[in-house]
Amino acid sequence: MKNVDLIINARWCLPMTAEQLVLENHSIVINEGNIVALLPQTQAEQLYQATQTQNMDEHCVMPGLINNHGHTAMTLFRGLADDLPLMTWLNNHIWPAEQQFVGDAFVEAGSALAIAEMLRGGTTCFSDMYFFPEATARVVDSSGIRASLGMVVIEFPTNWAKDVNEYLHKGQALHDKYRHHPRITTNYAPHAPYTVSDQTLQAIIINAEELDLPIQMHIHETAAEVNDSLAQHGKRPLARFKDLGLLSPRLIAVHMTQLTEEEMDWCAEAGVHIAHCPESNLKLASGFSPIAELIKRGVNVSIGTDGAASNNDLDMFAEMRQAAMLAKGVAGDPSVVPAYQALQMATINAAKSLGIDSVTGSLEIGKAADIIAIDLSDIETQPFYDLPSQLVYATGRDKVSDVWVAGKQLLKQRQLTTLNAQHVSAQAQQWATKIRSVS
Amino acid sequence: MKNVDLIINARWCLPMTAEQLVLENHSIVINEGNIVALLPQTQAEQLYQATQTQNMDEHCVMPGLINNHGHTAMTLFRGLADDLPLMTWLNNHIWPAEQQFVGDAFVEAGSALAIAEMLRGGTTCFSDMYFFPEATARVVDSSGIRASLGMVVIEFPTNWAKDVNEYLHKGQALHDKYRHHPRITTNYAPHAPYTVSDQTLQAIIINAEELDLPIQMHIHETAAEVNDSLAQHGKRPLARFKDLGLLSPRLIAVHMTQLTEEEMDWCAEAGVHIAHCPESNLKLASGFSPIAELIKRGVNVSIGTDGAASNNDLDMFAEMRQAAMLAKGVAGDPSVVPAYQALQMATINAAKSLGIDSVTGSLEIGKAADIIAIDLSDIETQPFYDLPSQLVYATGRDKVSDVWVAGKQLLKQRQLTTLNAQHVSAQAQQWATKIRSVS
Repeated sequence: MKNVDLIINARWCLPMTAEQLVLENHSIVINEGNIVALLPQTQAEQLYQATQTQNMDEHCVMPGLINNHGHTAMTLFRGLADDLPLMTWLNNHIWPAEQQFVGDAFVEAGSALAIAEMLRGGTTCFSDMYFFPEATARVVDSSGIRASLGMVVIEFPTNWAKDVNEYLHKGQALHDKYRHHPRITTNYAPHAPYTVSDQTLQAIIINAEELDLPIQMHIHETAAEVNDSLAQHGKRPLARFKDLGLLSPRLIAVHMTQLTEEEMDWCAEAGVHIAHCPESNLKLASGFSPIAELIKRGVNVSIGTDGAASNNDLDMFAEMRQAAMLAKGVAGDPSVVPAYQALQMATINAAKSLGIDSVTGSLEIGKAADIIAIDLSDIETQPFYDLPSQLVYATGRDKVSDVWVAGKQLLKQRQLTTLNAQHVSAQAQQWATKIRSVS
Repeated sequence: MKNVDLIINARWCLPMTAEQLVLENHSIVINEGNIVALLPQTQAEQLYQATQTQNMDEHCVMPGLINNHGHTAMTLFRGLADDLPLMTWLNNHIWPAEQQFVGDAFVEAGSALAIAEMLRGGTTCFSDMYFFPEATARVVDSSGIRASLGMVVIEFPTNWAKDVNEYLHKGQALHDKYRHHPRITTNYAPHAPYTVSDQTLQAIIINAEELDLPIQMHIHETAAEVNDSLAQHGKRPLARFKDLGLLSPRLIAVHMTQLTEEEMDWCAEAGVHIAHCPESNLKLASGFSPIAELIKRGVNVSIGTDGAASNNDLDMFAEMRQAAMLAKGVAGDPSVVPAYQALQMATINAAKSLGIDSVTGSLEIGKAADIIAIDLSDIETQPFYDLPSQLVYATGRDKVSDVWVAGKQLLKQRQLTTLNAQHVSAQAQQWATKIRSVS
């Protein structure tokens, strides 16, 4: 008998390693934060002695979800200004509020709120793009979640940095500080085609190559963005980026609602990853991303919630469901993006795009124990025919009962273990009181 | 001091009687199942003495949601066959399963499951279209929920009836049995343009006029339906129904994804109501209903989940959210279908279409106490700026803590009071075992 830290016994297990593979009555054996075995429970009982055993008798256990694009601290703006035209929303509400309030303390409080929400909803890793990432990093570190933090670059001054040099410098400092952290990685996050120059992008491409990092960027989010680029550069953003050499397996293109056949081919040929944000695209009326067409070409598609200012939640179960449903409507074909594919988008596909698929995104021996348990015993998930279908089309995030990241339990029977929910809520309410007084 | 049965004290109250009206610290005073007062808590304390008082200190209290189109018993098929082309889904899975299993006991078990799910999600009334409605009626009666039950008519034989005469006869018997029931009304439910003849529709139009009942029908659900009608009748379904005299304030047209400008004008002029099923339309790739255009013309639009075989839940919070978001994407305008309008669609608009707006759909003196309380204290609904926005864009059905219908509490701190959840689940599992064995 080998001694190990933890055994999770699962009624159902969806390891996300092979198409539609569902294991029943299996044990996930965890030691020092990693998965050391995944085998039938009867065998596990004979081979391993665990310090702690958790029986998930009515649960599905699967890899934690990866929210592949968001702006965590903006959760403090949840519902501040909805149902408005995009430029009214930005010019009259979001940007003034950001200018007045965004700083280290704001980002720390907003990140805590976002991370609390994500953990309670089964998200164990997120990719972020926001100012003061060092504040987000502190909460990632203390809360135990996993994250890829964006080193934001934008051509105009904000409360965080006054010019491109300062953005790049602060990003580099973040990267250096956390380069050996077990749960924090970094990515380059040039904001968007209309806010980052060719020169800056060239520098980022070189830096990303040297540091072996992904680059995430909002691209082709709206038709206006594409038209503005045609006016300014004589090219659509993707054509401009193709010429710059940005289209590569390092790139995570976020949104991508406006795409020609040729542009989709470029993405497939270059190995560009896509972070699809279906709810944000709907709510802001940005357009429809042709996800089924992209997947048909072999493009790796993942899912992000985008910020809570434009969603208004960080609910990856709702986002999976939306991704699967909307793709069918857009393609006019109910068989595209079946449930299992939506689950892949929310797990292993995102891990691949972030370059962390050797660590997370599936339940495999040697990977970190980033695991969620979903209670399937309630009325809402009765009866039961097909596991992926039930998870994507019928299960809500409220059914996530327990969450582990790197083997540490961060949610226990719906209760956060590392974040103080009452304190996080109280802080959010204090910020909202200030923000409301001027908005 | 007047003696009353119940006082509900609410931190926030959204009566749905006037645009954006939000009351704070108000009391809803209930006697003999009806609302007798809605006033500030401090005044209520001086005027009324209640047998029972419920303090909803962190809650929003609002009218119960009305699910305006569904097939309740099909909840037993939840997840049986997903991600398939429509005709494969119907021909190879749903219709064979219906033929083999649908009967009184099936519909009773399926209705109990659906009603349990709906009550737990804040739905206090539903409009149904399914066979053996007398079985559904029994569960509506015993569970305490409110419903408008469809008297289904279809030109081909099913387990319930062998021909149109028998459908009409059984529908009439249902209507007669429940005509004085305080919570059960009936509606005519001719299935669809391709399954009901002109002659039958003419009979239904006359009957509905005599009995003063609404008529619900799937109309313009898919492009194929419209094309088939052109081939068979030389007209699109709406043109055919215009000639028949079906377009009137009695008609609740369900789905309506394929609409010309002229057809939308007809609906507005005739006072046709629409039951919009956005998730079903997406999942089956039926098309996009131009809801914003219809609302602009003054058409009364409500929301339905459709059956759990094509959704796969009966979650009106998700459906409100989807209705608001999808409308923006389809219209290309983020300001259409704002949150408050989505709430109207899910409450008072549905009540109007069913002809029961004197009884339910808003919190007003003299109406039945069909009330839900939504807990807004969790992490997921922090911080808080705008109540309608929070309810539609950030709140999940799991936040519904308490539900009353006609003043009787049917959900108490997430627990059903009239249905035995364990028994309902066990029955659903037994049916699934049988269905799985042959599907």
